[in-house]
Amino acid sequence: MLKWQLLFVLYLIGLSKAYIVNPGPLYVATKGEIWPRPQQQQKSDDYFVLSPRDFQFILSENSGDCLILRSGFTRYFKILQQNTIPRFSKRNQQKSVKNVSEGEYLGVIGNLTVNLQGNCNDNDYPDINVDEKYQLNVTTDAVLLSAPSVWGILRGLESFSQLLYLGADGYTVRLNSTVIVDYPRYKHRGLLLDTARHYMPLTQIYQVIDGLAYNKMNVFHWHLVDDQSFPFVSEKFPELSQLGAYDPLFVYDPDDVQNVIEYARLRGIRVMPEIDTPGHTRSWGVSHPELLTNCSALEEGALGPLDPTRERTYEFLKELLGEVKSVFKDQFIHLGGDEVGFECWQSNADVVAFMKTNNISTYEDLESYYIQKVINIANNLLFNSIVWEEVFVNGVSLPNDTIVHVWRDYGDYHWDETMRAVTAANKDALLSACWYLDHLQTGGDWKSFYECDPNDFGGSDEQAGHIIGGEACMWSEVVNEYNVVQRIWPRASAPAEKLWSPYIQVGTYFDYTETSQRLEEHTCRMNRRGIPAQPPNAAGFCL
Amino acid sequence: MLKWQLLFVLYLIGLSKAYIVNPGPLYVATKGEIWPRPQQQQKSDDYFVLSPRDFQFILSENSGDCLILRSGFTRYFKILQQNTIPRFSKRNQQKSVKNVSEGEYLGVIGNLTVNLQGNCNDNDYPDINVDEKYQLNVTTDAVLLSAPSVWGILRGLESFSQLLYLGADGYTVRLNSTVIVDYPRYKHRGLLLDTARHYMPLTQIYQVIDGLAYNKMNVFHWHLVDDQSFPFVSEKFPELSQLGAYDPLFVYDPDDVQNVIEYARLRGIRVMPEIDTPGHTRSWGVSHPELLTNCSALEEGALGPLDPTRERTYEFLKELLGEVKSVFKDQFIHLGGDEVGFECWQSNADVVAFMKTNNISTYEDLESYYIQKVINIANNLLFNSIVWEEVFVNGVSLPNDTIVHVWRDYGDYHWDETMRAVTAANKDALLSACWYLDHLQTGGDWKSFYECDPNDFGGSDEQAGHIIGGEACMWSEVVNEYNVVQRIWPRASAPAEKLWSPYIQVGTYFDYTETSQRLEEHTCRMNRRGIPAQPPNAAGFCL
Repeated sequence: MLKWQLLFVLYLIGLSKAYIVNPGPLYVATKGEIWPRPQQQQKSDDYFVLSPRDFQFILSENSGDCLILRSGFTRYFKILQQNTIPRFSKRNQQKSVKNVSEGEYLGVIGNLTVNLQGNCNDNDYPDINVDEKYQLNVTTDAVLLSAPSVWGILRGLESFSQLLYLGADGYTVRLNSTVIVDYPRYKHRGLLLDTARHYMPLTQIYQVIDGLAYNKMNVFHWHLVDDQSFPFVSEKFPELSQLGAYDPLFVYDPDDVQNVIEYARLRGIRVMPEIDTPGHTRSWGVSHPELLTNCSALEEGALGPLDPTRERTYEFLKELLGEVKSVFKDQFIHLGGDEVGFECWQSNADVVAFMKTNNISTYEDLESYYIQKVINIANNLLFNSIVWEEVFVNGVSLPNDTIVHVWRDYGDYHWDETMRAVTAANKDALLSACWYLDHLQTGGDWKSFYECDPNDFGGSDEQAGHIIGGEACMWSEVVNEYNVVQRIWPRASAPAEKLWSPYIQVGTYFDYTETSQRLEEHTCRMNRRGIPAQPPNAAGFCL
Repeated sequence: MLKWQLLFVLYLIGLSKAYIVNPGPLYVATKGEIWPRPQQQQKSDDYFVLSPRDFQFILSENSGDCLILRSGFTRYFKILQQNTIPRFSKRNQQKSVKNVSEGEYLGVIGNLTVNLQGNCNDNDYPDINVDEKYQLNVTTDAVLLSAPSVWGILRGLESFSQLLYLGADGYTVRLNSTVIVDYPRYKHRGLLLDTARHYMPLTQIYQVIDGLAYNKMNVFHWHLVDDQSFPFVSEKFPELSQLGAYDPLFVYDPDDVQNVIEYARLRGIRVMPEIDTPGHTRSWGVSHPELLTNCSALEEGALGPLDPTRERTYEFLKELLGEVKSVFKDQFIHLGGDEVGFECWQSNADVVAFMKTNNISTYEDLESYYIQKVINIANNLLFNSIVWEEVFVNGVSLPNDTIVHVWRDYGDYHWDETMRAVTAANKDALLSACWYLDHLQTGGDWKSFYECDPNDFGGSDEQAGHIIGGEACMWSEVVNEYNVVQRIWPRASAPAEKLWSPYIQVGTYFDYTETSQRLEEHTCRMNRRGIPAQPPNAAGFCL
């Protein structure tokens, strides 16, 4: 049935091509359009010409200044150079003539004046409350980027770089006159990368973070460890990765982790670690079997979730999370809590006895007992916590500032219902349920991601205020270093736009033309910048 | 519904991990197993050690000798070097001890004696009747590869190279004592690559061909041109690609094509061109609108399939196919014939008038009229023809040696029914219907490809004799140079094994353990050889 449906869709795509008005791509890329769409943008067809090699970023008087700003200039200066290769293409020219109404030539732009209204310090880290607002004027009066914070300047530099396009003449680099006032709709716009099911080399992690910056996302959620492997090198417990990693080479040592954090920081991106417990911890047991629940009653040698009945479990976690706190600069830790199977606990006589002694009647309550203790440990370490939705659904009493991460949308689970329940309980929520990048569909499946909006959950305005954003999730069971970046981009660009740009209704009859054309340009732009993004839509090409 | 099903599958995968006996990958790679599985292999746990740098291929006395053979030695000598990096890994060692029962050490192998029983000439080309049989002995008596033809020697070298594995000690390169007698089940084992929906640079084409050799496939079916673009540079009609390619850079010029053919030839792989007509030709119309049927009655500027009513259409095709014959060395041309929409012909008054004049009552008959003329043109050029199944299904009278390519399996179309009809009509058939690589499924979808066998079509033995093989199809609407190789391998390895190895029944309850483990090894092997293959199964890693 499944296969038949897929094939039928393909059949329809095939048959619709029996005659074609124009050959070439279904969606011709836009020129100089921004992804994600800015909150407010006045556009004009009149254009400036920019000579990338002679171009300069100029700090205005009284502007703040720091390393983050300067390294942004360096990066975007390099990116501007990638627009300098003049190309003469008849086909390209044809397309241009057809699709871009060309306005008046307004002159040459030699520099962008940057005005950081606030201060910035070399060692600033982005946090959940960063101000990412910016204003960008490209007019005959001024070519000016201003923002209250350096994070806004970074977002504005990205937008500025996206304005550039190759002129219809095939050799001038142009940008249209425009005025942009822009800021994100949600403050947490992330991507989860699982580095435990397949180890991802730093090269790919950097490419993923580059992509986040190009899509104005601001959280790299690092799903560091899981059942299958433990690649995070703990200095307190080096045996965890020594024995728990797939291989001694497939680890993230303290330098690696600091390099990733710094790479992300300079791009205004937080690195939020996840130490998923009590389930998803089988790799811990290679070096520390005593931490896990023994369920050899179920199967010879089987070990289950962390053992919630022993104090040493919590002592170990206190040490480990303490180290995580000192390594990662983020205020948040993701504590996991998903997919805890109860059959192992159930099979263990000591666990059952412990529950009796402590008047714990259900396994959900046992999970609550565990999670509350772990959240307390995190709180004492001055971490704010995020947990997967099961923790909330199972009725764990959570501190007010714990964020619930909604991920299930199958069977009896509907993300909108869960979201209503979470926000009705005055909890902040993060949405991932409709943005699982490991779910594949034949054809251009970014549209199904684009259909999903955190706001469409049927809650009150007050409840909607509890939604802090969302994350695309790249679980890595069937991606390795060779296809992970390809699978993320441009598919994660869909949630990136849903989380940044103004709300738009995307129903069944939504006209995707403009969005598809803009995503074509954005994908080719990512390709030019070294991201091996796959095609978003259908047949096409990038120059 | 579709989404729900996908998610439910994922849910089951997730829940099954509530407790895990062992961390690490679900399927541990085998060591020194061959993909595709040989017809006959005697195995032993006793092993030899091989020092790749000191290793030599030695031609036996009276053996044939030629460039193809020598270049094979050079390639496989290089591949052997990739096994020389000794690695010490505790985890690896553990796995080895667990999964390989280690036999007796039999000594060092310094060379492989190669005995080509027949002749070979520097300029031989593989054709559909090549003899790929080989025998490989790795015993204390002899380390000998013999075959009647150079093509068999190439297949045997591939198998020999796959026997090598890293010993449990973490540094010796080993191979187990074995005797193999091997030959393919089907003679046409191909992969279609569409270079028209997205242009594929030569780098990726070479990687695809490398992969074909590593999977003992022998046909590179080059879907050169289509509606969207015409990247093939014709010397007779250079305007076809000058105007019809996506860009003047995105073409295959005569040198490119010769390089691809030579690259494939040295690996025993045929390059079969497809010039798909009368549909899928919109890109021809950029330079030659007069060849296409005008259907502006349907939509302003619309052009449809080639115009079957005008003699100049056939004169043009005669010239173009004549050039194709002189460029490609293969005996076969794929003439397409799929997805011809009749609404354009129907809308054109001249076409309707022509049908009346010539007593052609249906559009199927008009298509027949066209196809028969084109097959005659191909025949006169000494080409054998392959056509997509519609040509047969629509009742076109075909010469006996025309091969029918079965690709549909949706709605009212069932590949097994089509196959029965084709073979009952004494036509040879090629199967692709269940091996469309552009169809995606969440998780490890190579198994659904593996379930499909050309023999399971319910025909008689005589009918089964008409099946000459099959092809995996990589249509390129949503793949570009960045993900095409990743998407092909190792998924196309499934049809590769179905087409080479002995028939096995793969039902719902088939135990995939051995096959999955072997495909893990094969995938890692392809990665080591520079093919960016994606993971086949689930969590895992390659050393």
